[in-house]
Amino acid sequence: MATPSLFPLDPATSSSTVRVRVRFDETDAMGIVHHGRYLIFLEIARVEWLRKRGIRYADWAAGGRHLAVVEASCKYMQSARFDDELDVEVTLSELRAASLRFTYVIRRGGEALTEGMTRHACVDDAGKLRRLEEAMLDVLRRPEA
Amino acid sequence: MATPSLFPLDPATSSSTVRVRVRFDETDAMGIVHHGRYLIFLEIARVEWLRKRGIRYADWAAGGRHLAVVEASCKYMQSARFDDELDVEVTLSELRAASLRFTYVIRRGGEALTEGMTRHACVDDAGKLRRLEEAMLDVLRRPEA
Amino acid sequence: MATPSLFPLDPATSSSTVRVRVRFDETDAMGIVHHGRYLIFLEIARVEWLRKRGIRYADWAAGGRHLAVVEASCKYMQSARFDDELDVEVTLSELRAASLRFTYVIRRGGEALTEGMTRHACVDDAGKLRRLEEAMLDVLRRPEA
Amino acid sequence: MATPSLFPLDPATSSSTVRVRVRFDETDAMGIVHHGRYLIFLEIARVEWLRKRGIRYADWAAGGRHLAVVEASCKYMQSARFDDELDVEVTLSELRAASLRFTYVIRRGGEALTEGMTRHACVDDAGKLRRLEEAMLDVLRRPEA
Repeated sequence: MATPSLFPLDPATSSSTVRVRVRFDETDAMGIVHHGRYLIFLEIARVEWLRKRGIRYADWAAGGRHLAVVEASCKYMQSARFDDELDVEVTLSELRAASLRFTYVIRRGGEALTEGMTRHACVDDAGKLRRLEEAMLDVLRRPEA
Repeated sequence: MATPSLFPLDPATSSSTVRVRVRFDETDAMGIVHHGRYLIFLEIARVEWLRKRGIRYADWAAGGRHLAVVEASCKYMQSARFDDELDVEVTLSELRAASLRFTYVIRRGGEALTEGMTRHACVDDAGKLRRLEEAMLDVLRRPEA
Repeated sequence: MATPSLFPLDPATSSSTVRVRVRFDETDAMGIVHHGRYLIFLEIARVEWLRKRGIRYADWAAGGRHLAVVEASCKYMQSARFDDELDVEVTLSELRAASLRFTYVIRRGGEALTEGMTRHACVDDAGKLRRLEEAMLDVLRRPEA
Repeated sequence: MATPSLFPLDPATSSSTVRVRVRFDETDAMGIVHHGRYLIFLEIARVEWLRKRGIRYADWAAGGRHLAVVEASCKYMQSARFDDELDVEVTLSELRAASLRFTYVIRRGGEALTEGMTRHACVDDAGKLRRLEEAMLDVLRRPEA
């Protein structure tokens, strides 16, 4: 990643892997997982990445801090299918004063199927940009428990 | 319908038909529309049924009145497929002091594919049951414009 | 259940409970889980009910036998919210020559939120009604492993 | 766009605009359209872009030619809400021997809310890469009817 993080991240601790099983309604008439569903897999994995660091995202949201998605992208290399168990590796790859970026690799049995990226702004209930508070920064730089 | 309505309804004016085109993501790996999507078709059709009577459901919601779904059912006779144009006939079939019921028939080119029913309670923002206000009753007994 | 099963079922073994965590995209602008999502929770729970009896539903489907949903209903008593852990109790409540019925109770911490029912026909890849084969009947009457 | 198209495109005819109304189930607990839904809006708009050029995408699919999504991205500038009418401007921005790229701007009343991009490979039913046939190329370079 060429873009400098305002806050340095430790590559050894900034990743977690979350398992997701493909549901039947996530497939489409091509017999594979619909491309739009992968953004949901990324979101599930982000929420679990936080939980593994001691935080319920729902609590941040209830406290008026949201990590609004401002950019998202996916590269689809191989298809997933109904009932597949997918491992979503989530890495916090950039951490700045009021925004952050996660990158993702989705694998099935070790084979990379999809790569993804989401960029988030920290906003309050009114959607106004806010600095990440110290307590949030602590969580975000914490290794998985 | 044997159940008596508290407020009498005119069968000649209590129905409207709304066209919906099947989206690709609404199909599943059986090549047909996923059964769970039909509840969405019913919801779209309810919103348009109201619009045809001069009301944006979003305005009721913004004003603190919601028609919360308390019961829903579907009978699936034939499958719909990607790109099908479906006609959802919505009928207000029961209107009571604080609740109402819609029934639905989804057709493709005249052939009935699905029958549905939803029952709704009128609730405020806190989820508390509220009587349907006179202005709402007026809308609900109005013929399509 | 008054309707007689063609095949008798043992109430002691015909139920399983499956845990599902609510995803953020399953909520709607009322701040609660969208009513249409519950059919998905029922489907996930059915698939796990079968897995607990040694069968991947995907294998039945690949072998040309599908449990097509022919009827579904839900009664919504209380709302679920983002990140809630829900316990879906699935009971095979009727088993006939070519069809079956599941009933469901969704609970959060013991409190019943939703009740559901789905009725299924056994069909082949062409959608033609087929008798449940002996091996399928065995699985369906088997207790959870 | 710096990347050269193998087949030159006429900017005057390579765009179409498609209107989509936001459904209630497309919102989330933040009260806005869930970021994952925008990929669906792009898909709907692509299908209509083709229809405006005389082609049902379902016919291509039935004939064994699919425009599989191999990459997708979105930039979210402003939120959309329930019942909003969105105008999705779709532009075929790159056309190559076996792949193509669409770019998108989603607007509400003229204000740009979201920008998107999807890249597609032409594949057959087995997922094997195939050249775009002459008849497909004709359609893709055709102005809106």
